[in-house]
Amino acid sequence: MLIFTAMTTFHAPARFPRGFTCASRNVGLKPQAKDLTLFASEVEASAAAVFTRNHFPGAPIILGRETIKGGRLRAIVANSKVSNVATGARGVENARRMAAAAAAELGTLPSRVLVSSTGVIGVQLPVEKIEAGIVGMAQDLQRDPLVGAEGIMTTDTHPKALSASVGDATITWVAKGSGMIEPNMATMLSYIFTDAAFDAATLDRLLRTAVATSFNMLSVDTDTSTSDTCVILANGLAGTVSESAFLETLIAGCVRMTEILGRDGEGAEHLLRVKVRGAADDHEARRIAKSVLNSPLVKTMVHGADPNVGRLLMAVGKCFECRIDPAATDAWINGYQVVRGGERLTFDDAVVRTALKAEVVDLEIALGVGAAEATAYGCDLTKGYVDENASYYSS
Amino acid sequence: MLIFTAMTTFHAPARFPRGFTCASRNVGLKPQAKDLTLFASEVEASAAAVFTRNHFPGAPIILGRETIKGGRLRAIVANSKVSNVATGARGVENARRMAAAAAAELGTLPSRVLVSSTGVIGVQLPVEKIEAGIVGMAQDLQRDPLVGAEGIMTTDTHPKALSASVGDATITWVAKGSGMIEPNMATMLSYIFTDAAFDAATLDRLLRTAVATSFNMLSVDTDTSTSDTCVILANGLAGTVSESAFLETLIAGCVRMTEILGRDGEGAEHLLRVKVRGAADDHEARRIAKSVLNSPLVKTMVHGADPNVGRLLMAVGKCFECRIDPAATDAWINGYQVVRGGERLTFDDAVVRTALKAEVVDLEIALGVGAAEATAYGCDLTKGYVDENASYYSS
Repeated sequence: MLIFTAMTTFHAPARFPRGFTCASRNVGLKPQAKDLTLFASEVEASAAAVFTRNHFPGAPIILGRETIKGGRLRAIVANSKVSNVATGARGVENARRMAAAAAAELGTLPSRVLVSSTGVIGVQLPVEKIEAGIVGMAQDLQRDPLVGAEGIMTTDTHPKALSASVGDATITWVAKGSGMIEPNMATMLSYIFTDAAFDAATLDRLLRTAVATSFNMLSVDTDTSTSDTCVILANGLAGTVSESAFLETLIAGCVRMTEILGRDGEGAEHLLRVKVRGAADDHEARRIAKSVLNSPLVKTMVHGADPNVGRLLMAVGKCFECRIDPAATDAWINGYQVVRGGERLTFDDAVVRTALKAEVVDLEIALGVGAAEATAYGCDLTKGYVDENASYYSS
Repeated sequence: MLIFTAMTTFHAPARFPRGFTCASRNVGLKPQAKDLTLFASEVEASAAAVFTRNHFPGAPIILGRETIKGGRLRAIVANSKVSNVATGARGVENARRMAAAAAAELGTLPSRVLVSSTGVIGVQLPVEKIEAGIVGMAQDLQRDPLVGAEGIMTTDTHPKALSASVGDATITWVAKGSGMIEPNMATMLSYIFTDAAFDAATLDRLLRTAVATSFNMLSVDTDTSTSDTCVILANGLAGTVSESAFLETLIAGCVRMTEILGRDGEGAEHLLRVKVRGAADDHEARRIAKSVLNSPLVKTMVHGADPNVGRLLMAVGKCFECRIDPAATDAWINGYQVVRGGERLTFDDAVVRTALKAEVVDLEIALGVGAAEATAYGCDLTKGYVDENASYYSS
């Protein structure tokens, strides 16, 4: 019923565009798992990035906003376990030291290295471990993007990478989730690599367009991270490609990665997609889609496959400021209509229960007010989410 | 550290003002538990009410908005189990029949009876069971407000009533929670009774003032019910009292009942109070207090007594539109400072862990931007919440 991704075919397994490599290892931030990742381009790449709108951006974001002004990157260095947020001037200095260490290892300038950190907020970065541990990593650089994805995992249950072709060029996405996710401007660490040739200003425009309908429509738990970063590097080794074809594939990959992040949200057992159509304008379409997606009562209804569909109307109706006509409101669950004209239909509970048990649950709301539509992405709310987040700092 | 309630002393046990009585019984909506409540005043009372702002108000709300225009009430009739929401014209007709049945039983007019229903959304009310079951209830009317509270419980773990004196008059609060709670204009079924004499217009003004800083600052799960109703009846049997003294006590009782509802939120193990001070204006103070209160990551941090205090900054910082100065931001947990100038302090984890284990957890945020303040009320997020809401319809 709902078509969310374009006709894009993703490579299996994911692979890098020309000239990109990565490495990851354990440098002692975590007991054993990989905690440091390096992504490199053999030549300087045009670059653009969007960062969290949280008022308490992490030190890597403060530094990253400065770095991205140059529009050129050679590498990304990222650690997990400690996010280097709420760490003051010392935190920013540590982020600079991390950039300098990566630059020295790769033989480039610190201003060509984007730094990311993810993990606990408010703990100083053990930068000496990173400086010591990064030595020799240039020798480990290889061509599997999943290796880079491994080093940035926190509560993710699997590393995340995608790639697709655009003409002769390739686009590759590497990302991590999976809690403190309602990004605004970007999602928690999403890296996009391409060998297509674009200048930084064009990349910036394309990236913002793609992010608006993908990562910015993702929410695991309504909590906007202080570290959200989405960056794109274009090293030009494949030459120029059609901008419109590139944008179409860029959007398709961003939406697909958004779905992967939603499905792997903390504790998630379902990918939840909420499509709102017939809204008065784009803003209201997005607002209502997010309201339904983020409703704890809708999320637990999906989790328990409990056909308590009146909750859909509640979650639409609590958007006080939106134009809503109860008598025109319809709703479907995986294509099965459950609400017509603001009233719950008489339906077979067993059918709805089965629809809610699917791994991907599509909720569609037709408002009958206007022509705008939007889709939001997320997951169900489970005891697993409570478990993970009641002891995240301590464990 | 934080003083939330005025110097009001509440009666133990709670009692009714002069002339008010109630009764409750099982009429067959639930298998065994009480599911119908009648509150009555022996003389007609001035009345005012505020209702949900949800765009899909239940049939009792549609009828109640009409009824309250008269400014006079003799009774409230309320059922649990089925909320009579998203039930169309038949639902409104059923609400009218419920008012008529109560009026007939008490010997008054249907226009003097306020109807409430709470429970599952989207199921037609079995009004015949109510019409049959209410017969003879006038003989059961008695003076303990907790008996009335019993008939309106859904997932509440205990019935809720409070009372306090103002001069020679009494104010009594009866309410139910405990999920789909982020009221806006009122909370899910809160009834206030007094024998003080006020006209309906004055009552309306006093009620709105009290609700703004109490029930409207409560959130269990960000979900605004389609049935929220807060009504006050003043039968005048105690004569006139000081309006300022009455308002002070009215606010104190509304805040105390708000705390009781928060503590008994679905699955809750802690009452969570978030006080924000130093905000640029009242709107931003309320917005930020609610953001911290509603953050799933803050709620699970409290639940697990996990001193992951950086999450407080994240939840403040995601209020993008608010004026926030990271370098001026401080935070305390039950009086123990954990953040200064936007940076996490070095503290003894064990001390913070102990503070978070208290049944009442006060989070205080000082923004250092202006002079406005607000307090929000809620609870932690537990596996109990997920359990209750993954099968609410089916069980």
